Amino acid sequence: MRGVAIIGVGETQFGELWDRSFRDLGIEAGLKAIEDAHIRAEDIDALYIGNMSAGKFIEQEHVSAIVADYAGLADSHLPTTRVEGGGACGALALLQAYAAIASGLHDIVVVGGAEKMTDVGEVKAAEILSATADQEWETVFGATFPALYAIMARRHMYEYGTTREQLAAVAVKNHRHGALNPVAQYQKEITMEMVLNAGMVADPLGVFDCAPLSDGAAAIVMCSLDRARKFCETPVELIASGQASDTIALHDRRDLTTMDATVVAGKRAFHRAGLTPADVDVAEVHDNFTISEIMAIEDLRFVKKGQGGPATEDGETALNSKISVNTSGGLKARGQPVGATGVAQAIEIVRQLRGEGGKRQVTDAEVGLTHTLGGTGATAVVHIFRRVR
Amino acid sequence: MRGVAIIGVGETQFGELWDRSFRDLGIEAGLKAIEDAHIRAEDIDALYIGNMSAGKFIEQEHVSAIVADYAGLADSHLPTTRVEGGGACGALALLQAYAAIASGLHDIVVVGGAEKMTDVGEVKAAEILSATADQEWETVFGATFPALYAIMARRHMYEYGTTREQLAAVAVKNHRHGALNPVAQYQKEITMEMVLNAGMVADPLGVFDCAPLSDGAAAIVMCSLDRARKFCETPVELIASGQASDTIALHDRRDLTTMDATVVAGKRAFHRAGLTPADVDVAEVHDNFTISEIMAIEDLRFVKKGQGGPATEDGETALNSKISVNTSGGLKARGQPVGATGVAQAIEIVRQLRGEGGKRQVTDAEVGLTHTLGGTGATAVVHIFRRVR
Repeated sequence: MRGVAIIGVGETQFGELWDRSFRDLGIEAGLKAIEDAHIRAEDIDALYIGNMSAGKFIEQEHVSAIVADYAGLADSHLPTTRVEGGGACGALALLQAYAAIASGLHDIVVVGGAEKMTDVGEVKAAEILSATADQEWETVFGATFPALYAIMARRHMYEYGTTREQLAAVAVKNHRHGALNPVAQYQKEITMEMVLNAGMVADPLGVFDCAPLSDGAAAIVMCSLDRARKFCETPVELIASGQASDTIALHDRRDLTTMDATVVAGKRAFHRAGLTPADVDVAEVHDNFTISEIMAIEDLRFVKKGQGGPATEDGETALNSKISVNTSGGLKARGQPVGATGVAQAIEIVRQLRGEGGKRQVTDAEVGLTHTLGGTGATAVVHIFRRVR
Repeated sequence: MRGVAIIGVGETQFGELWDRSFRDLGIEAGLKAIEDAHIRAEDIDALYIGNMSAGKFIEQEHVSAIVADYAGLADSHLPTTRVEGGGACGALALLQAYAAIASGLHDIVVVGGAEKMTDVGEVKAAEILSATADQEWETVFGATFPALYAIMARRHMYEYGTTREQLAAVAVKNHRHGALNPVAQYQKEITMEMVLNAGMVADPLGVFDCAPLSDGAAAIVMCSLDRARKFCETPVELIASGQASDTIALHDRRDLTTMDATVVAGKRAFHRAGLTPADVDVAEVHDNFTISEIMAIEDLRFVKKGQGGPATEDGETALNSKISVNTSGGLKARGQPVGATGVAQAIEIVRQLRGEGGKRQVTDAEVGLTHTLGGTGATAVVHIFRRVR
């Protein structure tokens, strides 16, 4: 297998973008990434799109072909493929592109992620999101995503003494980071009091414990490592990936406080990379709820099991602390256009490893990691990146 | 890149299976393929699922995780990924598995395709299917799939003198083949008169010119070519693939009588295989409508442009004639559970190349091809297979 590098990145503003269509967003992100990579449209061998539910959000399937067409690429008859795995679709698209380049099938591949969620209203959006949990055994009985994650939060509090304040500390930290990110949906800090006093969604999770509904797109250009320098002065290598699945329904899990898919995906990725969690300088983890980040940093072994809450409260996961987690603001503050998330996470890591993190730059960042979930953890994908010297 | 072989196949009955769920179907096909490959569940490194619209047909996204879970594979935490590209999703899933094995990322991969279409009623199903055409410029104005393919048929008749009877000849032939296929949805022959006198759907396409709505699943086990003999006495090599896209909307095409995506995907596949259309003994092409098969055999260069109608009428594409096309009965008679289609096509080719075609065996079949479309031709995938000697 040959090495694979990222040579260009681009994304749209994330937010409630009522005047922009799915097509507009996909094209803007793609063109920015292509420009950043200094390639021409005709250099692209293939396109992978991460998207969760365009069929339901905008009544359009087959979105990979749509994006290529509307980006003006129809004449080159590019192979275009959409990949889905709940919220992990963007990370999965990255993985397919990696395999396509590593195998020699393609040389230069564009990976896009996009979702247009805010046109359907909040109730319908919640219903669409819940279709990535178990329809027959969970959502048909009224379980929403916040409800399912609240179950995990309650059990985590019971098992490990995790406090309401520790959950809230995740939101406060990620909003502080998001305030430094010009494309974030929420570029403003919030206080502990605001989180604790916010309206309840599913006990113990309040409004500020939940990532928002978002519109947005993100794109990455990848090529074989040996050609990366030709296009880019600061290529970033995707050195290893790990992917794992678990039961779709929460009630079938071994343990409600651990996502085994994250544990296994993390182990697989670290093993392939020949690295350990201690080698990671900066990580974007899937904080669709505050409890998710606490479980993620434990399951990825950045902290000991049960120590995710105290570590967050003590500032160990803040920018330029022990390990900088969700410097982009995470799903919580950068926003969560589902299909775009895995790609946007990778973009943040690339920017950090290039030294282009601006006000939120992690000092001397060499190794970065992304962690993306599908459903309530039935899919997990971990990618590990390193700056090419 | 290392070679990739198919070592096991399995599928369900195709039809209106009102007493079987999506999960039932996916698992049955998968277990049959695993049994056929003589592997154990723990040998499987990854699972790819081709599925078009489970989000809308059964209100369930994230179906790759569902299938692994319900097949009892949750404990091995398999990487599972769903792939979508309109009607081409099964063929695209096969392609991702090919890249994953060729790259060395995985050794043994299961590819499944499934769709459960008949529970929502015909009007809703037609609406769901049309979401793979251009929602903003076609379907919002009421264009259905039969209507869009009828436009192509009319233009083909105008340009090349293709007759109503020649279109009908595709359906008559494929029902004749389907009558020999024990898993086909329609295992009965039809006459030219029946096709010509059937109710009109979209002029000139009548009921018998359209593939049905179907439930069904199909699965394939693939591994690296060097290990194939270990599991299987008659492995079949996937020697090359070609994939191409085109404009999503019909009105943006260069020519309504040719699908450029098919032309380009075919050229790419033949080039990589070092073969020509004349080398192909048996082909499964995407006959979602009768006109589609005529265009496909022209665009794949099995016959000259414009000669698809006369060639079909003259029996050149019947079982054991010049080239045996859609020996399974095709989408028309075997049925069209969308996500399963590309996988089911590959299974038919594998059976033919193994010499397991039964009453519909193509004599001395050495090289086979599958052709699968997404939308009205915005995606096309061509795979070429050869018997391993």
